Amino acid sequence: MMVPPAVALGLDIRVLAESEGSSAQIAATAVGDYRDAGTVLAFARDVDVITFDHEHVPQDVLAALVGAGIAVHPKPAALAVAQDKLVMRRRLSAIGAPVPDWAEIAGAAALGTFLADHGGRAVVKTPRGGYDGKGVRVVDASSGADDWFAAGGPLLVEELVDFRRELSQLVARRPSGEVRAWPLVETVQRDGVCAEVFAPAPRAGALPERASALAIRIAEELDVTGVLAVELFETTDGGLLINELAMRPHNTGHWSIDGAVTSQFEQHLRAVADLPLGDPAPIAPWSVMINVLGGPEGATMVERYPRAMADRPEVKLHSYDKTSRPGRKVGHVTATGDELDDVIARARAAAAFFQG
Amino acid sequence: MMVPPAVALGLDIRVLAESEGSSAQIAATAVGDYRDAGTVLAFARDVDVITFDHEHVPQDVLAALVGAGIAVHPKPAALAVAQDKLVMRRRLSAIGAPVPDWAEIAGAAALGTFLADHGGRAVVKTPRGGYDGKGVRVVDASSGADDWFAAGGPLLVEELVDFRRELSQLVARRPSGEVRAWPLVETVQRDGVCAEVFAPAPRAGALPERASALAIRIAEELDVTGVLAVELFETTDGGLLINELAMRPHNTGHWSIDGAVTSQFEQHLRAVADLPLGDPAPIAPWSVMINVLGGPEGATMVERYPRAMADRPEVKLHSYDKTSRPGRKVGHVTATGDELDDVIARARAAAAFFQG
Repeated sequence: MMVPPAVALGLDIRVLAESEGSSAQIAATAVGDYRDAGTVLAFARDVDVITFDHEHVPQDVLAALVGAGIAVHPKPAALAVAQDKLVMRRRLSAIGAPVPDWAEIAGAAALGTFLADHGGRAVVKTPRGGYDGKGVRVVDASSGADDWFAAGGPLLVEELVDFRRELSQLVARRPSGEVRAWPLVETVQRDGVCAEVFAPAPRAGALPERASALAIRIAEELDVTGVLAVELFETTDGGLLINELAMRPHNTGHWSIDGAVTSQFEQHLRAVADLPLGDPAPIAPWSVMINVLGGPEGATMVERYPRAMADRPEVKLHSYDKTSRPGRKVGHVTATGDELDDVIARARAAAAFFQG
Repeated sequence: MMVPPAVALGLDIRVLAESEGSSAQIAATAVGDYRDAGTVLAFARDVDVITFDHEHVPQDVLAALVGAGIAVHPKPAALAVAQDKLVMRRRLSAIGAPVPDWAEIAGAAALGTFLADHGGRAVVKTPRGGYDGKGVRVVDASSGADDWFAAGGPLLVEELVDFRRELSQLVARRPSGEVRAWPLVETVQRDGVCAEVFAPAPRAGALPERASALAIRIAEELDVTGVLAVELFETTDGGLLINELAMRPHNTGHWSIDGAVTSQFEQHLRAVADLPLGDPAPIAPWSVMINVLGGPEGATMVERYPRAMADRPEVKLHSYDKTSRPGRKVGHVTATGDELDDVIARARAAAAFFQG
């Protein structure tokens, strides 16, 4: 999704894709393993700056790039915080950012102690590799994470936060320090996966100012370059607690492609190229983004375009994959407009053509 | 510029480029001569539909494609009207569309007669190959086109229209007949090249309804598929006369990339793929597009991004070419907003960073 703004701005973009036929194939593409330092170094030889669309590039590969004199954004030290949830919690706690109660636990006994202190239920997370609800589990018994402990390594345990809703604050920051914040958005999760995003977050009072100040502080303290997504809980007493961080364009920012003057993908390109950041202002009072998940039938979004486009000519449609896999995000739709209820209804009507 | 919407919609796009390193290189690209039927047929073997970003593909190549069973949009018969200005004038006159007085002339004597009937001055055009003011000349003597006559073939001569301003009406039409019109826009030409576009055309009264009805009628009568641009004169007595037609996304529609719900490039893709058309409504009360021409110094737009982006974070910047050539369109900028004067000022301020 960085290709369209790169084409518009006339910035050369090269992609190191995991496999032939992946979504990234449209751009000048190499195919190779991002975990192999030699592969990544060879790919990087002709570029000015390297960035990522996920956080999983190993630190030894990042170190090899930096050692070869290649600009890497976000930098390895910042990315390390997004790569490991225990590192993230430690760093956020160290800078005094609001996080749920948490502990690093090495076994069932420690989990039992945490459960006893937190009403008998808690969230256990694997430090690495989780996404879209994977690697996250609610437990109510000290034996509830035995399989993960058996797989080795410590786990993160957190209090089950009593929240009103989930929010997301995205900011972008350049190496030279400039930072810009998009409006705070509300995110609706289903089965651990982002389902809908309302931009800006409705009825948010003073939360936007607090959320953007918090995200900017995190970006600065952690020296984040590029887009930083701060996923937040709005607690039942009106507070904010940080759920997760991501250092890349993020699903909760997809609304900005069609709903903001500068999309998160254009902004990420500007930021990692150390170009002045664009205006993140919305282009309409409301934008609503709805994810499309692959269904069991396997019809692609494109095959369903005729009916969806005929019914909703004003909704923007995005398809990522040629093949639909059950439960996998295969695209999204975005509606914009003046009345929130109307925008939600139009986005849902469009999304419905691609579901089931 | 069709690549970004193709990526967003998840439509596979392949490009037959004239040379390595052309702007089209970002997409899966073949390099070859569009005038060679064998080259184009080989390229077309794997695609569902062929379209064009210029009108110069020869009719024998188009016929070979159709003969091979490949969908071609716009169709050869429609494209023939855009390829030859004499054919265009004949067809427009035949359907009763308002055009300047014109004649087909084979030599100086006929030109002299036309001049005598039209106040001693007229516009002579070569039927083929003209663009951006090339192949167009104002003459006031019967000998004024002798060099073109010497090169062979008849010429088109037209009255010098006494116009208030130039306008442009874009529509898109699907093979199945659906048609959508963007707002009528005002275009400001300098030295025969489009310099600025104001969308919608200010103070236009009833002209938008007349212009869109006219463009839709032309699209239907000529069986145009894809985007049709109708360049118009608003005459001093408030009438409309057709200046030129183009059957492709057009410079006077570039504002729609950032200023309309559906850009002309997305709409062209939808139209030629016979998908339902998107909403062409503007996203803001005013959009202003300004072309960037290559200057003698040769600094690229991208090299000038730092100052332009810092000064005008809200203006959308587009760069087509890595190398700047004097007088050639190398990019454009678009500003949007609520007050026309402010939008013009912001667009001009951004464009100024790239000029001279």
